[in-house]
Amino acid sequence: MNFASDNTAAIAPQVLDAIGKANSGFVLGYGSDTLTRQVERKLSDLFERNVAVFLLSTGTAANALSIAHLASPWGAVLGHRDAHIMTSECGAPEFFGGGLKLVGLAGDDGRISAAELKRVLEREEWGGPHHISPSVLSLTQATEAGTIYSVADTAAVAAIAHARGMMVQMDGARFANAVARLGVTPAEITWKAGVDVLAFGATKGGAMAAEAVIFFDPARASGMPERRKRGGQLMSKHRFVAAARQRNGGSARRWA
Amino acid sequence: MNFASDNTAAIAPQVLDAIGKANSGFVLGYGSDTLTRQVERKLSDLFERNVAVFLLSTGTAANALSIAHLASPWGAVLGHRDAHIMTSECGAPEFFGGGLKLVGLAGDDGRISAAELKRVLEREEWGGPHHISPSVLSLTQATEAGTIYSVADTAAVAAIAHARGMMVQMDGARFANAVARLGVTPAEITWKAGVDVLAFGATKGGAMAAEAVIFFDPARASGMPERRKRGGQLMSKHRFVAAARQRNGGSARRWA
Amino acid sequence: MNFASDNTAAIAPQVLDAIGKANSGFVLGYGSDTLTRQVERKLSDLFERNVAVFLLSTGTAANALSIAHLASPWGAVLGHRDAHIMTSECGAPEFFGGGLKLVGLAGDDGRISAAELKRVLEREEWGGPHHISPSVLSLTQATEAGTIYSVADTAAVAAIAHARGMMVQMDGARFANAVARLGVTPAEITWKAGVDVLAFGATKGGAMAAEAVIFFDPARASGMPERRKRGGQLMSKHRFVAAARQRNGGSARRWA
Amino acid sequence: MNFASDNTAAIAPQVLDAIGKANSGFVLGYGSDTLTRQVERKLSDLFERNVAVFLLSTGTAANALSIAHLASPWGAVLGHRDAHIMTSECGAPEFFGGGLKLVGLAGDDGRISAAELKRVLEREEWGGPHHISPSVLSLTQATEAGTIYSVADTAAVAAIAHARGMMVQMDGARFANAVARLGVTPAEITWKAGVDVLAFGATKGGAMAAEAVIFFDPARASGMPERRKRGGQLMSKHRFVAAARQRNGGSARRWA
Repeated sequence: MNFASDNTAAIAPQVLDAIGKANSGFVLGYGSDTLTRQVERKLSDLFERNVAVFLLSTGTAANALSIAHLASPWGAVLGHRDAHIMTSECGAPEFFGGGLKLVGLAGDDGRISAAELKRVLEREEWGGPHHISPSVLSLTQATEAGTIYSVADTAAVAAIAHARGMMVQMDGARFANAVARLGVTPAEITWKAGVDVLAFGATKGGAMAAEAVIFFDPARASGMPERRKRGGQLMSKHRFVAAARQRNGGSARRWA
Repeated sequence: MNFASDNTAAIAPQVLDAIGKANSGFVLGYGSDTLTRQVERKLSDLFERNVAVFLLSTGTAANALSIAHLASPWGAVLGHRDAHIMTSECGAPEFFGGGLKLVGLAGDDGRISAAELKRVLEREEWGGPHHISPSVLSLTQATEAGTIYSVADTAAVAAIAHARGMMVQMDGARFANAVARLGVTPAEITWKAGVDVLAFGATKGGAMAAEAVIFFDPARASGMPERRKRGGQLMSKHRFVAAARQRNGGSARRWA
Repeated sequence: MNFASDNTAAIAPQVLDAIGKANSGFVLGYGSDTLTRQVERKLSDLFERNVAVFLLSTGTAANALSIAHLASPWGAVLGHRDAHIMTSECGAPEFFGGGLKLVGLAGDDGRISAAELKRVLEREEWGGPHHISPSVLSLTQATEAGTIYSVADTAAVAAIAHARGMMVQMDGARFANAVARLGVTPAEITWKAGVDVLAFGATKGGAMAAEAVIFFDPARASGMPERRKRGGQLMSKHRFVAAARQRNGGSARRWA
Repeated sequence: MNFASDNTAAIAPQVLDAIGKANSGFVLGYGSDTLTRQVERKLSDLFERNVAVFLLSTGTAANALSIAHLASPWGAVLGHRDAHIMTSECGAPEFFGGGLKLVGLAGDDGRISAAELKRVLEREEWGGPHHISPSVLSLTQATEAGTIYSVADTAAVAAIAHARGMMVQMDGARFANAVARLGVTPAEITWKAGVDVLAFGATKGGAMAAEAVIFFDPARASGMPERRKRGGQLMSKHRFVAAARQRNGGSARRWA
């Protein structure tokens, strides 16, 4: 088990600068501030559509709350068996999801193939009332193995999931790396390829406690403000989180 | 509803300084760092005994996770009916606590009196299997009304709770103010008066996302690391949270 | 505390007869049997519309699962403070509802008045993300105090609830008595007056382990089969439960 | 998927007789009756030690509540991947267990071998705060494949589990068959071989809605009465459940 990941790296200097600049005057808390609005606008610009943004303090929270929001408690969440949500979040998705079940799929190099996804959806007994129902497909971008889902890879598995009535969540803890390496826009590799919700990591990109959950269809985010609050993730000095995130949003633009 | 609380104030400059100083080199994440160890030692010094410390990102998480840890799912958590946990956390204690119930007590000036606590414990139907059982007493220090529990006040209600087999949790979102105004030591107004666990706010005291749950009996914290992780509250760049907290720990010492 | 309620009375002889008659041959389990279909038809006849029926083993399960199905986890369930769900179900609605909150209203003779309901909806702080939101109104018919909501009483409070976007659940543990005393049809005192879901007790009416949850709009029952199964309430030898229930359904017709 | 299991068979005539005989007079509900006491005594006799008994309405509830009682929410429950709890309870153990995780093991003929159990315990990443911890071993007796764990088989895997600090739960939906075929006493194949808690099916043995959870160490059952009540499984006309169970308890004796 190697914790010496990029979590251990320093905060990018421009993030601390941004926090320092945010540190003046008297501002509304809990996200009702100008900086938070700016981050939302920047992320909407970045993704080329109006998105709903929820800042949170950890990647585990970003995954668990987004999955819980998309899946029913009797839903199955299909992901690669080596994915972080499967192995290293101490059951956070199951807890926030009211006892949903994670189903680990095999796949070379950390990736789920369309063939394997089809096989599992066809092979297993699914469906109520006796069996859980496929509810969410979770993709990790870049994967734990360092591999990347191309636009075509993503579109292929997302189409299978959508055809089955499932939603597609992306664990984007290393999303920036993937975008940079693919040479595509953030929009192309997410909603244009079928991703419904992105847990967009910034911690690993040089920020602190500034993860974001992004709903590409804001209507799907109904109830998410309450879910975040009761999940202990609505930070009061929200503008500092936004400031940290803003820098990241800015640099993300460069990937495109 | 007034959100223009001290949450809206700036981060204390020395907190940003401390974060900046922590921002060098390559350090283990997830709390396995020297700064986190230092914060634990400082808080143990501050409270004059060996304490178990869990840093979290919000006061709501600090309350909800500490209460969930102390109460059974069929437990009643007694607190003042105007307490933050009762009115303004969108059901976070109930969620983290597996469906426990908050029971709001009356009380002048935001405080629960020993008489009222006794009355409620005697009056209501309590006990399994048909009824929930009193499990935790939650005190807010200072209260939402700006009043303070003296050492004698705290000891009186804590003794009643302990006699009933309940645990005593303190929502210390404004703990520093209370200590300063009472002119007592942090130890005197917490564990020496019967408080078992403290949700020790720093956000309102000039820090950012650096709340702490403090167990005065570390043995009671068994399982809390897992609870924090699966609660989405184990921050990866933990040393910065610790750095923010350390400044607060330092200033807290001055209260005593 | 008096448990010597009608729960302690005998099973009606015709219920045992019906179970005996159901006890022959080899029949599909888990509700896929003819008797269960018959019960559904009888209840649809009784209520003068196509209803969705879910048989369960206890009144607590009928209340808890129906409330959990209608309320969001950050919902407030408003009911009389002396209602069974408030005092005597050991937190079952909170557990099945993912940590929702029950809010007890005052009211003479066990009944909630339109005035009190309005007052509470206007007075309290409600709404996300900081506060829970009114989600379900639960009425007990007949009440714990032995009183009854008339058609006009029911319609008045149901209209207020619906105007607020809430759903109306009825704990009908003693529903048969209420219908008999009011001299109305089951339809008039339920969906025609604004009740969305009824927990229809049969145990107290002479049956055994044959409670029913009735959705007057079957479309609202989507997901309820899974909820019942994972709630441990899908009985395998379902035809016997149905048989017990059928007798009750039959006698219920006589009330009208 | 074949539901035409023994769930579809009739109720044994002596069960209906017993219910009929219980159907006289006025008796305390909710388990405070003489028949329930008798069932407890009979089961204590059957298992040759003082056991704590909890009657419930379904096998799913018996499994889910017993597992939830033994495991922590961040616990892993290890069982055969074809076990009923894994495939056919629509996530009930996860729901009642607060989001615990079921981990399916391979094994010929539906049985878990000591070698496979050891391998999984050694191979996987386990332990807080990042990973879930092995908490319960669940054995199915007889298995879904119709095979049986011998006394030696059971003792071997139970010893491994206990050495790891895990508890051993047995899904005894077909327990009677197993005992009959093995030619051992119920005690020999349960607690004497290391089973801590048994979900003892009666539904499949000719009863109706009369499953039992049996704690071989009654001290471990602390809190279980509340868990059953809030789980919607404390039946009010409890003596009839007990009557149905008593017959089964009686016939179980004959196996030994």
